[in-house]
Amino acid sequence: MDRIEDIQGRKDHRQIAINRVGICDVQIPLTISGIEKDPAATQAVHAKADLSVDLVSENKGIHMSRMIESLLDMPQPLSPAHLSEVLEDLRERQDATRAELSFHFDYFLTRIAPVSKRAAPQAYRIGLSGSLDPEGFRIFQQVDVLVKTLCPCSKEISDYGAHNQRGCIRIRLEHDHSKPITICLEEIIEHAESCASSPLFPILKRSDERHVTMLAYDNPRFVEDVVREVVAGLKNEHRCVAYDVRVTNFESIHAHNAFASITDTPETGA
Amino acid sequence: MDRIEDIQGRKDHRQIAINRVGICDVQIPLTISGIEKDPAATQAVHAKADLSVDLVSENKGIHMSRMIESLLDMPQPLSPAHLSEVLEDLRERQDATRAELSFHFDYFLTRIAPVSKRAAPQAYRIGLSGSLDPEGFRIFQQVDVLVKTLCPCSKEISDYGAHNQRGCIRIRLEHDHSKPITICLEEIIEHAESCASSPLFPILKRSDERHVTMLAYDNPRFVEDVVREVVAGLKNEHRCVAYDVRVTNFESIHAHNAFASITDTPETGA
Amino acid sequence: MDRIEDIQGRKDHRQIAINRVGICDVQIPLTISGIEKDPAATQAVHAKADLSVDLVSENKGIHMSRMIESLLDMPQPLSPAHLSEVLEDLRERQDATRAELSFHFDYFLTRIAPVSKRAAPQAYRIGLSGSLDPEGFRIFQQVDVLVKTLCPCSKEISDYGAHNQRGCIRIRLEHDHSKPITICLEEIIEHAESCASSPLFPILKRSDERHVTMLAYDNPRFVEDVVREVVAGLKNEHRCVAYDVRVTNFESIHAHNAFASITDTPETGA
Amino acid sequence: MDRIEDIQGRKDHRQIAINRVGICDVQIPLTISGIEKDPAATQAVHAKADLSVDLVSENKGIHMSRMIESLLDMPQPLSPAHLSEVLEDLRERQDATRAELSFHFDYFLTRIAPVSKRAAPQAYRIGLSGSLDPEGFRIFQQVDVLVKTLCPCSKEISDYGAHNQRGCIRIRLEHDHSKPITICLEEIIEHAESCASSPLFPILKRSDERHVTMLAYDNPRFVEDVVREVVAGLKNEHRCVAYDVRVTNFESIHAHNAFASITDTPETGA
Repeated sequence: MDRIEDIQGRKDHRQIAINRVGICDVQIPLTISGIEKDPAATQAVHAKADLSVDLVSENKGIHMSRMIESLLDMPQPLSPAHLSEVLEDLRERQDATRAELSFHFDYFLTRIAPVSKRAAPQAYRIGLSGSLDPEGFRIFQQVDVLVKTLCPCSKEISDYGAHNQRGCIRIRLEHDHSKPITICLEEIIEHAESCASSPLFPILKRSDERHVTMLAYDNPRFVEDVVREVVAGLKNEHRCVAYDVRVTNFESIHAHNAFASITDTPETGA
Repeated sequence: MDRIEDIQGRKDHRQIAINRVGICDVQIPLTISGIEKDPAATQAVHAKADLSVDLVSENKGIHMSRMIESLLDMPQPLSPAHLSEVLEDLRERQDATRAELSFHFDYFLTRIAPVSKRAAPQAYRIGLSGSLDPEGFRIFQQVDVLVKTLCPCSKEISDYGAHNQRGCIRIRLEHDHSKPITICLEEIIEHAESCASSPLFPILKRSDERHVTMLAYDNPRFVEDVVREVVAGLKNEHRCVAYDVRVTNFESIHAHNAFASITDTPETGA
Repeated sequence: MDRIEDIQGRKDHRQIAINRVGICDVQIPLTISGIEKDPAATQAVHAKADLSVDLVSENKGIHMSRMIESLLDMPQPLSPAHLSEVLEDLRERQDATRAELSFHFDYFLTRIAPVSKRAAPQAYRIGLSGSLDPEGFRIFQQVDVLVKTLCPCSKEISDYGAHNQRGCIRIRLEHDHSKPITICLEEIIEHAESCASSPLFPILKRSDERHVTMLAYDNPRFVEDVVREVVAGLKNEHRCVAYDVRVTNFESIHAHNAFASITDTPETGA
Repeated sequence: MDRIEDIQGRKDHRQIAINRVGICDVQIPLTISGIEKDPAATQAVHAKADLSVDLVSENKGIHMSRMIESLLDMPQPLSPAHLSEVLEDLRERQDATRAELSFHFDYFLTRIAPVSKRAAPQAYRIGLSGSLDPEGFRIFQQVDVLVKTLCPCSKEISDYGAHNQRGCIRIRLEHDHSKPITICLEEIIEHAESCASSPLFPILKRSDERHVTMLAYDNPRFVEDVVREVVAGLKNEHRCVAYDVRVTNFESIHAHNAFASITDTPETGA
């Protein structure tokens, strides 16, 4: 047992409370469950974690090593449903009133080429985060879906061809923590992809490439169109309590990017 | 003159307004003025710009090329005092109600070694951003100040030595746009450095290195101490209307980082 | 079956052969074996892969989708001993004379705190790469080991204290492909850490922090010292045929870094 | 004057010489001349510098602060023709036999839209590096040119449309140091762009976008085509002594990238 003096436990006299203190950029192996359609699916991921609590003005510091202990003692496999207990544990170990955590990791799903039906894994960047304070518990899930967008203006004003490019649709949902999370990763991704000119695929044979090329030409979309289409599918979605959608196009005619974003809450029915 | 049809100008029927649409990661050369103590000082910088406006539900898209025109037509040298007119221009060209912009760039100041007095340039990462909407104009200035922090716990519990590391103090101030900005870069940086264990320097001779080593050992600081010290100097600072301070330590005993942050507004006098 | 014309298979008349053509930044889940001391150990990792072959001047292009097929058909778990067959497969599918591949991923090992004996996972960035050409097969393994370095000059010239910081030791070994690889990850990491002022640990209680602080103060090392110590342990190491060592210090007294590197082959005995 | 003991100047007994020791990631403001067509053109840039020398086995360390002094004492404006004297200075101050340096910075050139003739600055990432050792002086210049590439296969196999994307052509030339450098930046960039499906532009009005869209559709290029076209223009270029060309396509149908590279020396005439 440590008998060395606990400097962090001393009193502080500056009368300044701290909103967030903790550790960030912690690399940690996790087994994730509860985000795919198949409820039994788990995946070993490599996460980057940020953890923090608040600190009252009277105390000099938090105990950084206990933050790591909270990480090590998390239930595994870890599902979004476990975040509240991890936050509770963080708060208790640090004698805090608020706690926040976020995990970012790549998660692989198998994608099937549209014509040849070749299957290959595709990585999706996921963010899973939560906060706990006296007003309650909040949980957020973020997914980056890479897509193809083809410019409607370029198509319409040109005799042939149309510029197109890789784009990224970032969808961040705040879930209703009082209910089980029923919006699975596949559902978010399929919705995002259906709003772009075409999905991307890890493997495409020539028949697939032909399909994707014409699919995109048949579905031109500005960043404005994509963000609106995504939101059109979320604005009556009562399984989430808020959403934030950002579409970024890595323009193939410019060195800079174009983007559009909408932050809102689902409409209440009438 | 373009007689090609204006697709972006068409009507949209999805009844979804867009919060932000624009361009990001635009690289642009700027001449910056008005941020140093010397009001006549200017510096050629290489900025990364993000610009956006809102879009009413009735319109299909914005005119991306006009965003670049707003950038090209900015007054040069550009000072923070010019941001409101740039935002006004953005809003007008796109017929929008809101506009936002941010510039990030490195700005060099000469730093003098503490004993040898050798001078050399040090880069500071600066963020300059603003927004304009029907509620008014807001302006923000952010500075990243790299410093040295030495761990008070490590010092106290060890017979000799103490772990120390590079850290970053990010100070973001919202200025009171109704008054001239009088908080200069040097003042923010000096305040930040005085809150750490020691400043960093671009060039140090042996006599300087001795000075910095002992200065840091004499001034141990946790991330919690640094963020509180910075805020102690800001909480009665009525030249700003809000502040956000984040301290990150690139811990020399761990592969992960420690951080602490406080977001607040200056206290009103009584 | 594809009956669409094979454009890549056409002839090219520019008489210019291509050294490397392929795919890069491919994200792929792998199960890795054969790099830990325990020969039965495997780990699910998330790799970034680069693959290429050469292309004779007569052919217009390679078949990019077959590169992905080579990845998908790799033996799993994948050990360094399998790289030659993967390279052989790449070369055959593309009718090439040379093939190169590299995988980069984080691999977790459990680290035990020096006094409290608390265990926690630590990520190590690993590079595994190989090439195959008419002169033969080559295989390389790279490990980034984060460490603490304490400056000997700062210690000696100061009355107390010494600046120290996080550093990175990158060791890249070319293995002798004709023999089984017997240099395990733990051996490389332990050697690297023994050459620095102190290892880093994912979790440290106060008793550990005291230990690490004094260990570093007792073992001051310049980047020059660290790179020499690492090479002193490799220069008679006949299990590798070449080594490249680069040490980078994220200086805690400067905003820039210091580095030292040595590239050499083990000395032949006499 | 420093009378503190010079630890770095002590003797080392490990009998291990060091290939490179120095500083890296040094941020420094420079005025660059001598790379544009107009010989009088200069530009203030923000460079990242890496500097190193070799170290004989007998000496414990180099003098890091003298590396910064070499940077501070460089001639300004700095042209590629000055690199040899900077390297000479580095070598002398450290009593070394070899010296290396590299600068990376963004450099702006004005680009004119093809139809509307609107002008705007475009950033090009430049690398300028050199080495000096007993065998002589070498100088390298690298330019990243962002372009548009349109896939020939996608165009040919589809009834309409063709996938296209942003790509990057990196050209690295080793100049003949015995002659004045006459290959200007504009010449390298124009050559690179002529080898792609279309250049990129910072500002495009609708008439320009129509032009660029059709230009790209009329000039489909694989990465293999682009790298060959670039090399076709370099292989008889006797103003350089070696070249390295790498083309990367940020594929709009995949989340991964495609690349092709050629490293060679110009052919000797007959």
